[in-house]
Amino acid sequence: MDIAERLLKHDKRAAARLISMVENKDPEGLKILQNLYSHSGKAYVVGITGPPGAGKSTLTDKLAKALRKEGKEIAIIAVDPTSPFTGGAILGDRVRMNDLSTDKGVFIRSMGARGHLGGISEATSAAVKILDIYGVDYIFIETVGVGQSEIDIVKNCDTTLMVMVPGLGDDIQAIKAGVMEIGDVFAVNKADRDGASRTAREIEMMLDFNKNVAWRPPVKMVVAVENQGVDQLLESIMAHKDHLMSTGGFELKRQLNAKSEVVEMIKERIEHAILDNSHNEVALEQYAKQIVSRELDPFTVVENLFDNYKSAVSIK
Amino acid sequence: MDIAERLLKHDKRAAARLISMVENKDPEGLKILQNLYSHSGKAYVVGITGPPGAGKSTLTDKLAKALRKEGKEIAIIAVDPTSPFTGGAILGDRVRMNDLSTDKGVFIRSMGARGHLGGISEATSAAVKILDIYGVDYIFIETVGVGQSEIDIVKNCDTTLMVMVPGLGDDIQAIKAGVMEIGDVFAVNKADRDGASRTAREIEMMLDFNKNVAWRPPVKMVVAVENQGVDQLLESIMAHKDHLMSTGGFELKRQLNAKSEVVEMIKERIEHAILDNSHNEVALEQYAKQIVSRELDPFTVVENLFDNYKSAVSIK
Repeated sequence: MDIAERLLKHDKRAAARLISMVENKDPEGLKILQNLYSHSGKAYVVGITGPPGAGKSTLTDKLAKALRKEGKEIAIIAVDPTSPFTGGAILGDRVRMNDLSTDKGVFIRSMGARGHLGGISEATSAAVKILDIYGVDYIFIETVGVGQSEIDIVKNCDTTLMVMVPGLGDDIQAIKAGVMEIGDVFAVNKADRDGASRTAREIEMMLDFNKNVAWRPPVKMVVAVENQGVDQLLESIMAHKDHLMSTGGFELKRQLNAKSEVVEMIKERIEHAILDNSHNEVALEQYAKQIVSRELDPFTVVENLFDNYKSAVSIK
Repeated sequence: MDIAERLLKHDKRAAARLISMVENKDPEGLKILQNLYSHSGKAYVVGITGPPGAGKSTLTDKLAKALRKEGKEIAIIAVDPTSPFTGGAILGDRVRMNDLSTDKGVFIRSMGARGHLGGISEATSAAVKILDIYGVDYIFIETVGVGQSEIDIVKNCDTTLMVMVPGLGDDIQAIKAGVMEIGDVFAVNKADRDGASRTAREIEMMLDFNKNVAWRPPVKMVVAVENQGVDQLLESIMAHKDHLMSTGGFELKRQLNAKSEVVEMIKERIEHAILDNSHNEVALEQYAKQIVSRELDPFTVVENLFDNYKSAVSIK
């Protein structure tokens, strides 16, 4: 039986294998995914982000366990764009010393920065499709970092969970300000710590700025390590899912994602077409020398080069 | 006197004005920068990154003050790709309650995610050129977040300073692993805290993996708020500068940066050319609907669209 058949028959190892193939830019892997794409679209995708030390991994594990009790199958993708590790390698605190990794109904995968077609965002998106075809009910995408590319990854999920934590210092204010718009549900983890209710209040206050929205993100207190508040948090995630389903927001969100995915893939392809061409490589290096020596400025170089593409960027 | 003349005459307000113009995609601003580009290339650019709460802002201020004592002029660009604030707005802990902001020899600027031509990386790069032309000796680029785009920004600097801090939890391990390659100098800030020497040892151990490098990144203990160890840290930064200058690494690094900047700008231009075209907008939305309904898969869409560009990506 080939990988495609095995994947459709819910073979976990086939899913792992196909993700690796796609990560390694194997054209055969991409072809298989392309052919099977029509079988995707059933899994619900939850993004989990927040600052380092917020306890995202532990919380993800608890949410997964809660869903396992309801008989759901789960995939967890741990994304760390700053890590060189990928595939089989286990990221930082991702050494899950618990029963999840031996549970047949749970698929766990780490994604690092190395060896991806396009960016890590594209690789993650391909892994989501493969796990969707494989047949899990929920896919959790957990990001380890907290920068723009992590936000780009989770904002393409159906529901985005922002995990905050009390007392992480001033920088957190800036993080909060930037991520307010992408959080559909907020968790204040380690809520048994001093300052938890203050953190929750600060989040609520920031949410107050955004009046007249169809969905007001709930803010939930949890202590992930103690499994406190996890069920209520899961209810909030499900409430957001129901909201999207009942308002047509789900369709719309997925269409926007598909659009930005296509644009991203085209950009990546163009970059590769430019860089994988030895003639271009030489020309670019020559330009770079002239830019550094101030014979040319980068804007003029880009203008000249861009004229080549201008006529080609009209979509049929 | 027009902005260009004023900028060449070291007019601080002209620099601020031109950065705003370029941030707001004002074609006139870009034209001015393009014309003045040959006047750039003199400032030395130091990138400062590290996890939230590491005390990057305080340390940046202290380094700037140390250089001011030597009579150097400084610019500080605080970059937060996740913040919607930009320009005049002050980011998170960037409310610098000190004498730096009233010092004529210091230029401070916050860069958020909003209203940039291209990405924030491109806007930051334009601001660096403007401040270089304006005539500062050193430009510090401080990133608030710690994700891929922040790393992309600082890795294009001449020297990159990684600021670590004791006891930030497990996620930090993953951060460290990913950023080892971009750090030219390491600072363990808040070194009066428990675990500081352990953190330094961990960094040294990771650096040990990378034998036979021409430059072994030094690891310095600092207590930025007490101004302890700042002079020694500055010496390490200068030692790295001397190393780059004496080995030809400086030229090479700047050429690589120029190359990747050109490629990035072309990608951004292509994206805009695609998205700013109403015909394309309609076509893309139609494609997105078909992708979500599984009539088409995104890979086929990209393949079809990409055929348009393939012939155009050969650089002359």
